[in-house]
Amino acid sequence: MNVARHSYITHLEAAIDGTEFEPGSIQTTHGGRPLWVRYDLERIAREVDREVLRSRPATLWRYEELLPLETGQEIVTLGERTTPLLPCPALGRKLGVPRLQIKDESLLPTGSFKSRGQALAVTMAKHFGVRRLAIPTAGNAGGAMAAYAARAGLEAFVFMPRDTPSINRFECLLAGAKTRLVDGLIGDCGRIVRERSEEMGWFDLSTLKEPYRLEGKKTMGLELAEQLGWHLPDVIIYPTGGGTGLIGMWKAFQELKAVGWLDSKTMPRMVAAQSDGCCPIVDAFERGERFAETHVAPATIATGLRVPSAIGDFMILDALHESQGRAVKVEEKRILPYMKKAVAAEGLAICPETATCLIAAEMLATSGWIHPDEHVVIFNTGTAQKYPEVLSSDLLQLERPEKQVNGTRR
Amino acid sequence: MNVARHSYITHLEAAIDGTEFEPGSIQTTHGGRPLWVRYDLERIAREVDREVLRSRPATLWRYEELLPLETGQEIVTLGERTTPLLPCPALGRKLGVPRLQIKDESLLPTGSFKSRGQALAVTMAKHFGVRRLAIPTAGNAGGAMAAYAARAGLEAFVFMPRDTPSINRFECLLAGAKTRLVDGLIGDCGRIVRERSEEMGWFDLSTLKEPYRLEGKKTMGLELAEQLGWHLPDVIIYPTGGGTGLIGMWKAFQELKAVGWLDSKTMPRMVAAQSDGCCPIVDAFERGERFAETHVAPATIATGLRVPSAIGDFMILDALHESQGRAVKVEEKRILPYMKKAVAAEGLAICPETATCLIAAEMLATSGWIHPDEHVVIFNTGTAQKYPEVLSSDLLQLERPEKQVNGTRR
Repeated sequence: MNVARHSYITHLEAAIDGTEFEPGSIQTTHGGRPLWVRYDLERIAREVDREVLRSRPATLWRYEELLPLETGQEIVTLGERTTPLLPCPALGRKLGVPRLQIKDESLLPTGSFKSRGQALAVTMAKHFGVRRLAIPTAGNAGGAMAAYAARAGLEAFVFMPRDTPSINRFECLLAGAKTRLVDGLIGDCGRIVRERSEEMGWFDLSTLKEPYRLEGKKTMGLELAEQLGWHLPDVIIYPTGGGTGLIGMWKAFQELKAVGWLDSKTMPRMVAAQSDGCCPIVDAFERGERFAETHVAPATIATGLRVPSAIGDFMILDALHESQGRAVKVEEKRILPYMKKAVAAEGLAICPETATCLIAAEMLATSGWIHPDEHVVIFNTGTAQKYPEVLSSDLLQLERPEKQVNGTRR
Repeated sequence: MNVARHSYITHLEAAIDGTEFEPGSIQTTHGGRPLWVRYDLERIAREVDREVLRSRPATLWRYEELLPLETGQEIVTLGERTTPLLPCPALGRKLGVPRLQIKDESLLPTGSFKSRGQALAVTMAKHFGVRRLAIPTAGNAGGAMAAYAARAGLEAFVFMPRDTPSINRFECLLAGAKTRLVDGLIGDCGRIVRERSEEMGWFDLSTLKEPYRLEGKKTMGLELAEQLGWHLPDVIIYPTGGGTGLIGMWKAFQELKAVGWLDSKTMPRMVAAQSDGCCPIVDAFERGERFAETHVAPATIATGLRVPSAIGDFMILDALHESQGRAVKVEEKRILPYMKKAVAAEGLAICPETATCLIAAEMLATSGWIHPDEHVVIFNTGTAQKYPEVLSSDLLQLERPEKQVNGTRR
């Protein structure tokens, strides 16, 4: 498929107060808060049988009725494919969640789940005539944006904290993006983009600052539902930085329910996992608040979780409450050991962000909140190979000069 | 699919002299040279319609009739999916091959095409009761083997040159493989594995030292044919180190022809691309010889091509001759500039090895050996993100402190 065949989009809707906007032109936020993309779900329910999916390629574009593309619209693609949902019984048994499955998003272009959002956002921005894209990033979103912008023939400007993993810097530079290191955090990068966008002619692709990255991330939920034969799992644990994936999945499940494609009677409990080095959502959840306070002095090796303030905080917290889920913080010092344990147990390239979910799973199983019979799905949001700085000091001591090999015999 | 449903394997056959072996037990080489896996192609032609593929998942396992699995055999999988075949018109026009397509193997587990071979090799080794695997590697094969071994619950021992990219070292260590750095080249690593295998109880997964990695790599050709609607391209350019992929694809095309699945009347011309820093196959081709001499003092940033001596040299050269193809060496110093040009043009994470193919394409187009109307397919064998050492010095000068951003306005 190179063009969309259907368009069921009706309008955009401000998440904070329901104000409606036309979908046919470029849109950003309302009152500084995100917009939802809304579809004519009743018409989809009448006109579209889920069986139509069977004949379509295994990509995120197969869910075209639930995507914001206009009829005949060209898409920007790097060959993103449906990601595998892998049973991980060896790891699951260690953690007390034997029915664990991991959906491995590291197999997407640029090695992370950020490709889903950028594929949609860049496709829509190009469609609306945008020529220059800008993004503040903790790392992987910038790499994905740079790659999709190159594919689309658009200019890209990426702002990232100076201590972002080197591979994120390299992938942006390689793709031809103007890449700037900022002495600060992702919020400082975001401020630069905001302040200079008008002067520079940038369109701001920040998390939830335009409505379509969310629709891309939503496809994680659509794929998961289809892969499970339209039966959702009991619990989903998701590493939560900006939270677009969690918000997007919860939106996906509501839409699937509305169009009648789900066979599940119940919805999964959604769990947001964060490091105690940066846990604004957990703090808000524990205080019973709908809006989060900025986490002061955030510090975690899980760079994707180093988001001290999320514009979609209330959307994340709403999803946790509506799903009867929760937010869990894990000890920063446990992240690297669990990452290593997970890769060695299953061979999957588990990233530090995902390691927080594994720790959370074990905590929730130990406390009884997750029952051993329950089906738990965790998302591996990026590939471990993109974190050499995290790994180097710890792993290199394992290497031995070749001549000592004989000593290793067991 | 978790188990194979069919088995059409008949025997193994020594590539050097046709000696036959039973397929039902572990096998290595004959006379130090590789074995082919042979199938009852006549029976497949009679019994299997290619349309059967339509209902199967988009993974390399879908070609089960042409794979060595026994009926009911469990497979070792990390969720490897059919890789995308992407039109690259912007890059193709720059190179004089406007009908260029790139098959992006970087989207496989561990970020490289090596996953195909290791998925099959580890699956078969486990099936035959092997517990300890060893491999000499230029980098990516070790990473893939370590990951599949972890998934299979087998012990892994990896030997790599000391200057192998750090990410390959990290991915092996993370997956729990015993990882050893060797002061030497892949051949030196191979000698260590050979000499100690008996003592250590290792099964040697070196390139073409067992028959099943080749069958995994063969799936590149099977996928390509199916993706092109059973019409093969005019030219395939392949970055050639050990050459398993090129040999495997050529085998795939012969098998597809024999079972009657191909609609193509002609076969593609197969081109082996190498750096002039390590080009034993090109040298042998130019001398008209069937066996290659060891390349002395090989040096290339394309670490996957740093294979001075290939056990399957005659199989590569046979495929080049039978296909009316050729071997092309490119200037080492052009690799990095073409890698950058390619990523910036299309957003794909092109690796240095693949850059040699792009340079070769341009040379062959310029010389008239490739006509502008011809359909050219190049394989991106790994992700650019795995080569930080190659990129760092060259790219970091492009980064500017954030405060200079205003000066970049054009």
